Amino acid sequence: MALFVQKYGGSSVADAECMRRVAGRIRDARRAGNQVVVVVSAMGDTTDELIALAKQVNPEPNEREIDSLMATGEMASSAILTMALHALGVKAISMTGQQAGIRVDATHLKAKIQAINPKRIQRHLEQGYVVVVAGFQGMNPSEDIATLGRGGSDTTAVALAAALKADRCQILKDVDGVFTANPRVVPEARKLDEIAYEEMLELASCGAEVLQSRAVEYAKNYGVVLEVMSSFEVKPGTLVREENKQMEKMIIRGIAADKNQAKATLVGVPDQPGVAARIFKALANANINVDMIVQNVSAAGITDLSFTVPEDEIAKTRRVMEPLVKDIQAAGLRFNESIAKVSIVGVGMRSHSGVAYKMFDILAANKINIEMITTSEIKISVVIRDTDADQAVRALHAAFGLGRKSAKKAAPKKAGKASAKACKSPKKAKAPAKARQRK
Amino acid sequence: MALFVQKYGGSSVADAECMRRVAGRIRDARRAGNQVVVVVSAMGDTTDELIALAKQVNPEPNEREIDSLMATGEMASSAILTMALHALGVKAISMTGQQAGIRVDATHLKAKIQAINPKRIQRHLEQGYVVVVAGFQGMNPSEDIATLGRGGSDTTAVALAAALKADRCQILKDVDGVFTANPRVVPEARKLDEIAYEEMLELASCGAEVLQSRAVEYAKNYGVVLEVMSSFEVKPGTLVREENKQMEKMIIRGIAADKNQAKATLVGVPDQPGVAARIFKALANANINVDMIVQNVSAAGITDLSFTVPEDEIAKTRRVMEPLVKDIQAAGLRFNESIAKVSIVGVGMRSHSGVAYKMFDILAANKINIEMITTSEIKISVVIRDTDADQAVRALHAAFGLGRKSAKKAAPKKAGKASAKACKSPKKAKAPAKARQRK
Repeated sequence: MALFVQKYGGSSVADAECMRRVAGRIRDARRAGNQVVVVVSAMGDTTDELIALAKQVNPEPNEREIDSLMATGEMASSAILTMALHALGVKAISMTGQQAGIRVDATHLKAKIQAINPKRIQRHLEQGYVVVVAGFQGMNPSEDIATLGRGGSDTTAVALAAALKADRCQILKDVDGVFTANPRVVPEARKLDEIAYEEMLELASCGAEVLQSRAVEYAKNYGVVLEVMSSFEVKPGTLVREENKQMEKMIIRGIAADKNQAKATLVGVPDQPGVAARIFKALANANINVDMIVQNVSAAGITDLSFTVPEDEIAKTRRVMEPLVKDIQAAGLRFNESIAKVSIVGVGMRSHSGVAYKMFDILAANKINIEMITTSEIKISVVIRDTDADQAVRALHAAFGLGRKSAKKAAPKKAGKASAKACKSPKKAKAPAKARQRK
Repeated sequence: MALFVQKYGGSSVADAECMRRVAGRIRDARRAGNQVVVVVSAMGDTTDELIALAKQVNPEPNEREIDSLMATGEMASSAILTMALHALGVKAISMTGQQAGIRVDATHLKAKIQAINPKRIQRHLEQGYVVVVAGFQGMNPSEDIATLGRGGSDTTAVALAAALKADRCQILKDVDGVFTANPRVVPEARKLDEIAYEEMLELASCGAEVLQSRAVEYAKNYGVVLEVMSSFEVKPGTLVREENKQMEKMIIRGIAADKNQAKATLVGVPDQPGVAARIFKALANANINVDMIVQNVSAAGITDLSFTVPEDEIAKTRRVMEPLVKDIQAAGLRFNESIAKVSIVGVGMRSHSGVAYKMFDILAANKINIEMITTSEIKISVVIRDTDADQAVRALHAAFGLGRKSAKKAAPKKAGKASAKACKSPKKAKAPAKARQRK
C-alpha cells in the first residue's frame, strides 16, 4: 500500500462543484488501495477577501492577527472537503495545522516549519481515514497561529510527505505539469516528464510560478519525490526529483521570465572599499530581496552600481537608500521598472560549454539588448527591456530545441537564424503540448 | 479597576463599519479605566453561509466537521475586531477558544464548557491588553474543536466572566435590554431595569429570544451579574441577577410567546401503567425536547395524550412515535402546528395567589380558548391558537399593568375589561419604551 500526499490549490477547490470533483479524485486514489493525506488551500479568493476585509478596518493590520485571520480560510476548506468525501462514502477527517502536529518558528506571515509530529495523522491513516489537513499554517512557540507565506500549502504538503515518509507528494494544479516555458507565451512549450530539484529551484526563483522555491528546497532536503499534475484530468504530470542518469538529456530544461523586477542604479558612487558592503547590508537588514548586482568599471574613482529588486519593494528600497546616497556621497538613485529577467536553466550546462555564448547570440540576432547578466552553474539570467521578454523566451525556446524530446541532439547549430522562426513549431517536433491555463 | 466581559453578537459586528463602532465602544470602556475582555460572534450571516456551503457538498454534514467549519467564523471575527482596536490605538490581542483556555466536553454542536484556564487571558490583561475571544467554541478532550450551540457566545462570555471573577458580564445586543414583552407586539412594553435569574430563565425557555437559557443558568450558578444592553447607544440596560429586596416589586415581570411549538396528540391510548413512560423515554432517547404534557381523563380505559415539541422536530417525533403507536395499540398520532405557547413569568407569583385565575379570566374575556396549561412556581404557560397569540400578549400586558413602573399597585382589578383595551397605553403609564429592533 502506497502513501500519497496530495495538495489541492485554491482554484481546484473554489466552490462546491470543485470540491465534489476533488473529492472524487481522492476517492479514486483511495479505492486504488493507497493511503491518502490531503493538503488543501483556502477556497478560491477567500484569502484575498479576508485581507481586503482586514484592510477596511486597519490599513496596516498586525501580522499576528492577519495570520489568525488568513488561517481560517484553510480550516474552512479542509472541513468542507472532508464533508464532500463523506458524501461519497469515503472515511475522512479534517485537521488544522495544529492538529496535524505542524510546529513553526516565531515569524509571522512567512513562518518556517520547525517540526512535525505526525502521530495523530498516522493513527487516523491506520484506522482507514483520508486525513485532510489545512495547508499554509502551523502553531508557533507562543501557541499562536502562523502562516507560511506564499505557496505555503505546497510546503505543508512536502513537509508532511517527509514526516510521513510518503511515497510521493502530488501537487495538483490547474496546469498539467512543469513546462519548458510558459505555454501562454510559447505555444510549442511542452510538459516535462521529469526535472531535477536544482533546475526546479532555479526556475522557481526566476519567475516560473508553478512551484514555490521553499517547497522545492524542502523536498530536495528530505528527498521527497514531487509530482506536479493536473487537478482536472487524470494523467501523469512532471516528477521533480534528484538528478539521475535516467532523466531525459537536455542542456536546457526550461526558460523563465520575470517581469516583476525593477533595476535600481546608484549613480556616481565613489569607488572606495566598503561602500558596496554598506549598501547591501542596509538592504539586507530591511529584508529587501536583491537579486542581480552589476558594478561598472570605475572611471576616475567613480562608478555606477545597479541591482534588481522586486517591483513592489521599490518604495521600501528608496526609503532605505536615500539616507545612504548622501552618506556615501553618490550622485543619485534611479529606478527602472521596464525590465524583465529572462533565465535559461538546465543541469546539462555543467557539461556543455558555450551555452552562455549561444544565448547572447540568439538575443543579439533578435536585436535584444542585454543590460545585466548573472550566471550560476546551471542557470544564465539576463536583464532586458520588458517589452522584449516574450520574444526572447520564444527565440530561446526554439533555438535550444525545447519543443522537442531529446533536445540535445536536435538543437540547431545556428541559433541566431533559428531563433527568428521561434513562434513556429519545428518540423520534427511533437504536437505542441496544449496550454492549460484555466482560471 | 473593574473588569468587564463584553459580548457582541453577530449583527453588532456585521461589517467593517460595525466593527469600527464596536471598537470605539471598547476603547471608551478601556479609557474609563477598566480591564476589558471581549467575546465576539461571527460577523452577520457568516455562520448561516458556512452551513449553506456545507450542505451544498453534503446534505447531512458530519457534526465534528460542521463544528470545525463554523468555529472559523468567530475566529475571523475576533481577529478583525482586534485589528479595528489597533487602528484606534488600543492594545489588543485575539484568541481562539482554545487559546483562551476553554475546554469543553465531547459533544459536538452543543458542547458544554467543562473548565476554563484563564492564565493566558490574565497575563495579557495584566500587560494592558484588551483580549478579544472567539465565542461559541472550545477544545474538547480529543483536541477537536467543538461549538456550544445556539447562543453559545453568550455562554462563552458568562463562563469567562466567572473564571476571571469579572465585575460584570455585558451582553451587547441590537435591543436596549429585557422588555416586559416583545416591543414589536406590544408598543407599551418597557425595558426592565432588573430581572431575577429565575425569571430570565423562565422567559428564555418560553420563547423570549434576548438571552439563551444556558448562559443565564451558568450566570446563576456562578453568581455572574449580567447586563443586557444596547450595542448602538451608551445607556444602562437590564441587570440580570439574584433576586433581592431592592428589585422593583412586580407580580409579573414579563410575558413571552413561542410560536415555534407544535402539539402532538396520541389518540385512543389504552390507559395502562407504563404506557406514558415508554412514550417519553423514546422521545428523550431521541433528544426530542418535549415541553408540555396533558393526558385527558380516561373513559372506558382509553385516553388521549398530548404533548408539545418544537415545530422543527415534528418529522423526528413522527419517526420515533410511529412504531410505538402500533406497539401500544393507540388509534393514531396527530400534529397541530397552529398553536402558540404564551407564558407569564414573575417571582411575585410566589406570594400572590389568584394569578392563574386572573390570566385565564383575561383570556376568556378576549374569547381566547386555552388548550393546555402548565405552571411552575414563577410561571404560567398556556397553549392557544397561534393566531390569538399577539392579542393574548397585549391583553395580558395591559391587564397586569406591565407598561407602568410599580405594576403591583397599579394592576387593574377587573382584568377582563382592562384587557379589551390592551393596545392602548394606560393613562398613567410612562411613554412607551421604543422598540429597537434593528437588523
